[in-house]
Formats: sequence, C-alpha cells, structure tokens
Amino acid sequence: MMPVAIDDPADPRLAPYASMRERDLVGRQGRFIVEGEVTLRLMASPGARFRTESVLLAPERWPGLAEVVGRLGAPVYLAGRPVMSAVAGFPIHRGVLAVGLTGAAPEPAAPVPPAPAPALVLGLAGLTNHDNVGACFRNAAAFGADAVLLDAACCDPLYRKAIRVSAGAALITPFARLPEGADWLAVAEALALEPLALSPSGRETLDAAEAPARALLLLGTEGPGLPARLMARARTLRIPMAPGFDSLNVATAGALALHRLAGATGRIALHPAPVPGPDAREDC
Amino acid sequence: MMPVAIDDPADPRLAPYASMRERDLVGRQGRFIVEGEVTLRLMASPGARFRTESVLLAPERWPGLAEVVGRLGAPVYLAGRPVMSAVAGFPIHRGVLAVGLTGAAPEPAAPVPPAPAPALVLGLAGLTNHDNVGACFRNAAAFGADAVLLDAACCDPLYRKAIRVSAGAALITPFARLPEGADWLAVAEALALEPLALSPSGRETLDAAEAPARALLLLGTEGPGLPARLMARARTLRIPMAPGFDSLNVATAGALALHRLAGATGRIALHPAPVPGPDAREDC
Repeated sequence: MMPVAIDDPADPRLAPYASMRERDLVGRQGRFIVEGEVTLRLMASPGARFRTESVLLAPERWPGLAEVVGRLGAPVYLAGRPVMSAVAGFPIHRGVLAVGLTGAAPEPAAPVPPAPAPALVLGLAGLTNHDNVGACFRNAAAFGADAVLLDAACCDPLYRKAIRVSAGAALITPFARLPEGADWLAVAEALALEPLALSPSGRETLDAAEAPARALLLLGTEGPGLPARLMARARTLRIPMAPGFDSLNVATAGALALHRLAGATGRIALHPAPVPGPDAREDC
Repeated sequence: MMPVAIDDPADPRLAPYASMRERDLVGRQGRFIVEGEVTLRLMASPGARFRTESVLLAPERWPGLAEVVGRLGAPVYLAGRPVMSAVAGFPIHRGVLAVGLTGAAPEPAAPVPPAPAPALVLGLAGLTNHDNVGACFRNAAAFGADAVLLDAACCDPLYRKAIRVSAGAALITPFARLPEGADWLAVAEALALEPLALSPSGRETLDAAEAPARALLLLGTEGPGLPARLMARARTLRIPMAPGFDSLNVATAGALALHRLAGATGRIALHPAPVPGPDAREDC
C-alpha cells in the first residue's frame, strides 16, 4: 500500500480525523480514533479485534511504521504535523493517527468462552469515567481476562481517552455491551458464570474466597457501588483495608481481584521458578 | 470562629485562592489548595498533617460544615459561587475550598517508624505524573503504609490534582522528600529498611517473595522504570502477567505490592472471620 501525501486539511479523505474533540462528544458512527505508535501496533497485532479504515502519519513516521501499517491493509495518508493538527483541531505531537471501524456490536455471549471451559470475565456496571473504564481494560488484559462485559450505562471503551488509558487493551480485549436494563445475575446464569460482586461491604475477603473456574467479576461505581439487589443475591467480595481510609479506585480494586482470580486459576504463575539474577547471568 | 462574608473578588484575604490554575504551575510558596468536603474533613481529622490557613465556603455550605470547620481553628470566609469562581479563575461547583500550609519540609527519616518497629514505606522514584503520585498515596493509605518517600524528581503530592486523585490521602499520609541526587539504597540502609524494587523484570514474583518486617517498596516510572544500578543491587519483585500484554499502571502495580506486603505483615486481615450475610442478619 503506497502512502498518499495530502496537503489540504479539507481533503475529504481526512474527514474522519476532523474536529476530534467535538466528535468525541457526539459519537463517531461506527468509527474510533487510534493515537500513537503503541496502539497502532496493537491494531496490526494478531489479537486486534477491529479493522483499520485508514492511517494518517507525519511523513517522517512512515519509514519506521511501513511494515506494521502494511499489515493493516488500509490506505495510508501522509501529512505534516501542521496539517494533522489543523484537521484534528489540536496539536498532534506524535504524528501517528488511524481510524478504526467498530463493526457490528457483538452479543453479550459472543466474547465469553462457552462452558465448561474456564472463563474469567470482567463486568462493569455503570462506570461512566473514561479513565476508570480504560484502566479496567488494561488490568483485564494484564491478567488474561477473556472478556469484558459493560452495561448500557458504561461509557465507550473506544473513546480516545479510554483507549489511551487502557494502553491499547480496549483494542485487543474482547468486549460486549448488555442491553438497557439487563440484569447481571440473569446474564451470569445464562453464560454459566459465577457472579462475584466486589464491594467494600463484601461478605468474603478476596484472598479467603474460593475462585470459581468460570467467574464474572462485577465492579460498580465508586460512590453508589453495585445495586443492593445485586449485592444481596451474588457472592460478594471485599478487599481488606487499613482502618480509617477504606478507599480504593474501582479499577485498582478490580486489578487486585483479577490478579487473585487469575492466579488461583493458573492464568498467571504466582510462584514460578525464579529468574536468574544479574550475578547468575554473568556466569553464563 | 464566626464566618466573614466577602463580596469583593479582589479582597486581599482571598488572594491565596486567586488564579488557581496559574499558581499550580508556578508553585504556591508553602501553601496548597484543598477542594471539596471530603478533603476538608480530612484536614480536620485526627490524622491531618497540615495546618489550615483559611476556609472559603459558599454560604449555603456553612451550616453543614460549621462543626468540622470549627475544629480547624482557621478563619472562614463566605462568598457566593460567582465570587469564588471569579477569584479562582474557573467554576467552583462544590463551593468548598481551603488553603493549607505545608510547614517546614521534614527530613526523610522523620515519617519512618524507627527500627526495630515494623515499617512499610513506599518509595516513589521519578514519578512526574500527578495522577500516578495521587493514586500511589491513595493506595498507601488504603493498605496502611507508614510513610511515602519521594525523590527530588517526583511531582508535588500537594498539587491540587494529586490531592484529588489521592482522595485526600496526601493530607494524612506522612511523606518526605529525598534531597537531589540521593541514593535510594543508602536511604534504605540508613533507615534500616529492606529495599524491594518492583519492576516487570524483577527476579522474584510478588507472591513468592518473603515480606520483610521493614520494607521500602520502590516504584519507578512506567517507561524507563527504576535505574539499572538500583535494580542490580536491590531485591527485585515482579507481578506475573498474561503473555502478550505485560503492562500495568505504576500505581496499580504498587497497590498489588502494598496489598501483599500489608497482608503478609498483618496490617490488613486477608483471612478474617466472615461477616454475616444478609440472610444471617435477618435472624438477629
């Protein structure tokens, strides 16, 4: 795919990159923006879940990225940073942008490994903060969760800031949205997942609780938390904290729970053979 | 302390609240800004580490906060939100501000419990992002760390955004700064702390490592991480992650390590007696 140089910020091929911040607010009709080299590389990785519509690079970024971009099979436009910034509406320092296509929204069951296979699924209930949603995706990817499910109230994981905070995990971690008004416990039952509700008022401690082979770890907002009705019917887990300051960020609490569940079910090796230290390596 | 109504944004008593964002950039000469009720209450809590110079409230917030503010022993100014916003230079929605006084900078040894008492100290090396520093303080408080030490390159935990992200933990968790060029390992030795360097290339896994009674948990920046010289001489810990996406936020990684160290040394109870569930409570 030969790159096409574009000098005119009004060129219609650049329209999907125009006025990025304003578009963030109104939605992008099936498109999303990818920023920076790390996330562009994830779009071209074997785990990528989305097609790339086009790539927009500062000319000097092309040689270093030609191979990666070649794998995307999308048109590549080259424009100097002033043109990129004029199109986007703010300074584009890194000179690497792309437009991804969301494709059709998957059914909630689609990203979840079918029973009786093991499954670790993160369920986000009412998270409206892009930093938190992005951070939850990053943690899900780091600890090998199979999928993320989001209720209708959650914000979009493909919003620019969420992708950035996720370190690109939102581009490679399978996710699906529940329909408006869906009941998490009914979803868990339909997918043969055991619901584990994480909450400061949880009845079991995270470390004492037995980890199910098929878990749906549910996280709610920091203020109101998960609905009382759900808490009453699910297994509930809490993270013990120091007296007087029992306050953790929701994504951080989720990271602790994912780490514990991933460790208990062998997704990550908590006690592997030690890696040789620098002294040992000097002997090689 | 009777509150004083102020209508004039140019009143000199409001000068420490003026042009907040600009002042954030240039420093505040021994002062810092507290925003919102939660953090104001922490300034008045038994664990508070800083004196309050003054409080600025929207008049309708006074009745609900009079008792708390009374404990601060500081003058209270009442001004409508338009005046508050005019002074601050941006909209003050919550109508609760205060100015704290940093006091003299403590020596690095000051906040660390002397040997042979147990100690859990968080060491931040080169963290220049206010979100990360704030989040590290929140996690330190949640897991009962005794103190946080910051090297000279770290940003200020009393910067507005850092306080906010810390959920106020920066106001109650003892901290001190190391002098420019200080060596973490020399500091650890002087304070009889065992340095534990957290890094993706750590030799021991977090869960397999024995937790020392006096630990200095060292976190570096996400990109370059901790200096190689330090890594070569300290005990190094890593958090196992899923293949293909070994990326955690530094504060999140720190939370996992603090949780583990706090649990292993009995600061938090990982396996306490279970709390009665709602069914059991109905029997009471």
